[in-house]
Amino acid sequence: MAQTVVMKFGGTSVGSSERIGGVAKRVAKHRKETGDRVVVVVSAMSGETDRLIELARKVGGDRYPVREYNQLVTSGEHASVALTAIALEREGVPARSLLANQVQIRTRGAYGQNLISGVETETLEELLERGITPVVAGFQGIDEFGDFTTLGRGGSDTTAVAIAAALGPCRCDILTDIDGVYTALPSICKRARKLQTLTYEEMLEMASSGAKVLQARSVSLAYKFKVPLVVCSSFSEIEGTLIVEEYQGMADAVVSGITCRADEAKLTLRNVPDKPGIAAKVFKVLGDAEVVVDMIVQSQGTAGRAAISFTVPQESAQTAYEALLKLATEEMPDASVELDKDIAKLSVVGEGMRTHAGVASKMFEVLGANGINVEMITTSEIKISVAIEAKYSELAVRVLHECFIEQQDAGR
Amino acid sequence: MAQTVVMKFGGTSVGSSERIGGVAKRVAKHRKETGDRVVVVVSAMSGETDRLIELARKVGGDRYPVREYNQLVTSGEHASVALTAIALEREGVPARSLLANQVQIRTRGAYGQNLISGVETETLEELLERGITPVVAGFQGIDEFGDFTTLGRGGSDTTAVAIAAALGPCRCDILTDIDGVYTALPSICKRARKLQTLTYEEMLEMASSGAKVLQARSVSLAYKFKVPLVVCSSFSEIEGTLIVEEYQGMADAVVSGITCRADEAKLTLRNVPDKPGIAAKVFKVLGDAEVVVDMIVQSQGTAGRAAISFTVPQESAQTAYEALLKLATEEMPDASVELDKDIAKLSVVGEGMRTHAGVASKMFEVLGANGINVEMITTSEIKISVAIEAKYSELAVRVLHECFIEQQDAGR
Repeated sequence: MAQTVVMKFGGTSVGSSERIGGVAKRVAKHRKETGDRVVVVVSAMSGETDRLIELARKVGGDRYPVREYNQLVTSGEHASVALTAIALEREGVPARSLLANQVQIRTRGAYGQNLISGVETETLEELLERGITPVVAGFQGIDEFGDFTTLGRGGSDTTAVAIAAALGPCRCDILTDIDGVYTALPSICKRARKLQTLTYEEMLEMASSGAKVLQARSVSLAYKFKVPLVVCSSFSEIEGTLIVEEYQGMADAVVSGITCRADEAKLTLRNVPDKPGIAAKVFKVLGDAEVVVDMIVQSQGTAGRAAISFTVPQESAQTAYEALLKLATEEMPDASVELDKDIAKLSVVGEGMRTHAGVASKMFEVLGANGINVEMITTSEIKISVAIEAKYSELAVRVLHECFIEQQDAGR
Repeated sequence: MAQTVVMKFGGTSVGSSERIGGVAKRVAKHRKETGDRVVVVVSAMSGETDRLIELARKVGGDRYPVREYNQLVTSGEHASVALTAIALEREGVPARSLLANQVQIRTRGAYGQNLISGVETETLEELLERGITPVVAGFQGIDEFGDFTTLGRGGSDTTAVAIAAALGPCRCDILTDIDGVYTALPSICKRARKLQTLTYEEMLEMASSGAKVLQARSVSLAYKFKVPLVVCSSFSEIEGTLIVEEYQGMADAVVSGITCRADEAKLTLRNVPDKPGIAAKVFKVLGDAEVVVDMIVQSQGTAGRAAISFTVPQESAQTAYEALLKLATEEMPDASVELDKDIAKLSVVGEGMRTHAGVASKMFEVLGANGINVEMITTSEIKISVAIEAKYSELAVRVLHECFIEQQDAGR
């Protein structure tokens, strides 16, 4: 049955005039074969955003007003939406390109990392009713003054999901340069296989723990509004990965995917007084320094002394280190601060963990057997993450993939 | 005394990050030295509009929707205004970039050649009052639907003048890659000298007869609203050319400038019935074919037969030829149509012609003495234009420059 579909194409998919032509052919074919009403969302042509940022750096030096930075980078999609509309018209598909202000994609929050607060559907609905395909600029929004804002890297995914959510029952296809979500990163693990289906929660855990296929924020938005997501290739018509709330047999596989991010750093504050309020003080200092903390372990020492370890993204490691050093100097004269920049966070994710016990112990066993020391652990209902030395990250992915995915597949 | 000045920088002046830095320094210095309130208008970085048009051609083939073409090319200034604002902030000048929709530069008329119908001054005034320099995108406007429109090549000059006119008593500086308006094109005529002052009418006649320094439309807009225009270099601080309604001694020089455009074509319709209504019929056919006719000569032949000659821009020559051929075939069986594509239009312009007679005869005499045949003539109060064979155009400019400008200068 004909429906409304948002098709989002990333920067690589619109990276040249030929590829924009390919996008138009793909959309035209989809419309013809299904009768679907299609809204297209595109990013800037690949390389364009980086080119603009480099120009901003040359012109503005290290600091430039965020408002003007946003005005600058949004010119990237300004061009790509128009080119995509031109290409669609050439394929006989009536099309109309729209920037964030022309749709009214409203955002709030911090400049450069804005959140979508609302999408006006009037213009989109009107175009769709007239048989015209809207081509919407991804990544951009407008603030209360009508100025352009940006959603952060990968923000076009969020634009696409937000539009799908606003338009009502509507699927969202993310067409990209890979053909779906894999059990592990294929470049690290050759035996990784594509997943047919995932739950939002699985995808969310995978996205926030290293799978770069989708911006985590776009997945949580899809989850919130129950927008079925499809991740598939813009270059082939191979079936992609469907992400939904639940699917048949979703608990059968204990582990669905293994992810790894090697850009973490670990900080340890040793010999701090073991009394209430100390952890709160530490994390308030970090919060004030705008450091986002990931895994946390507090261990009790001796003689009323404790240690607190936590991981942060490598890019905030130095800031966090300096904030802690200042705190220690001023208020905890006995404490010491250690920084380890070579930390990887390894995660196994799967709905099956809700009902299957023993995943953690098996994971530690496999890692231990391969000489990999687990430095920290965090868990959620469907995920176990461990911090390990970064140099072991690829090996760890492979051995866990063999243990959890390949053996599981073989056993079916 | 401090005033409001619109400073317009063309594509070459913002053609690289270094040059954008230079523009910012120039504006910062001007503000500091004069205390003027400045509105900056910039074009797209040189080459950018051509790059976008080439992409449109690759993606869209020969035909593409004008609405999307406009959306595409306006992304050029979208980037350049933001970069210029970033550069100004670096120089300590608070700045805010604005696209046509953010200012509300409204246009009407044919897509791709729109005319400015109104400029909203509220945002501009508010920024100026707060000491912030608005950086406005040239060349672009919006239509009644809020869609981007474009003003045609060189349209940024018109943007600048329209803003100056809207803001009230306000000078408009056109900063470009030449340092003023010359008595003739210096690349053709080495003895050409820069003019200190010109009247709007002189500039208008020169612009519409080949001087490419300013878009004619911007001059007539400045004339209408009495906006003092300055043409000067963006790369040096040499004094430019001031264009105003009248200046002292404006009638002293008989000829102020000599221009030439070599992209004309001549069409001749021979052996047509010499009776009322024939010329009307001919020019109605041309008007329907959207051909703009420039010079016209109707000559009486023998036996109730006449000939009509006229010039058109070379790009419409073929269209005009075919339209005339069709008319002749259908309604004037005895008539013949001739097309000469190698025609130049040579003009001498000067306020002094209002009071000095004999310029035409002297012009013909000089051209004749150099073996140059005059094929057609048109005059206005301050201009005489002749059609000549294109191959003589450079020679003609030089001999007329010697006769009218150099001898005149020597006689002072």
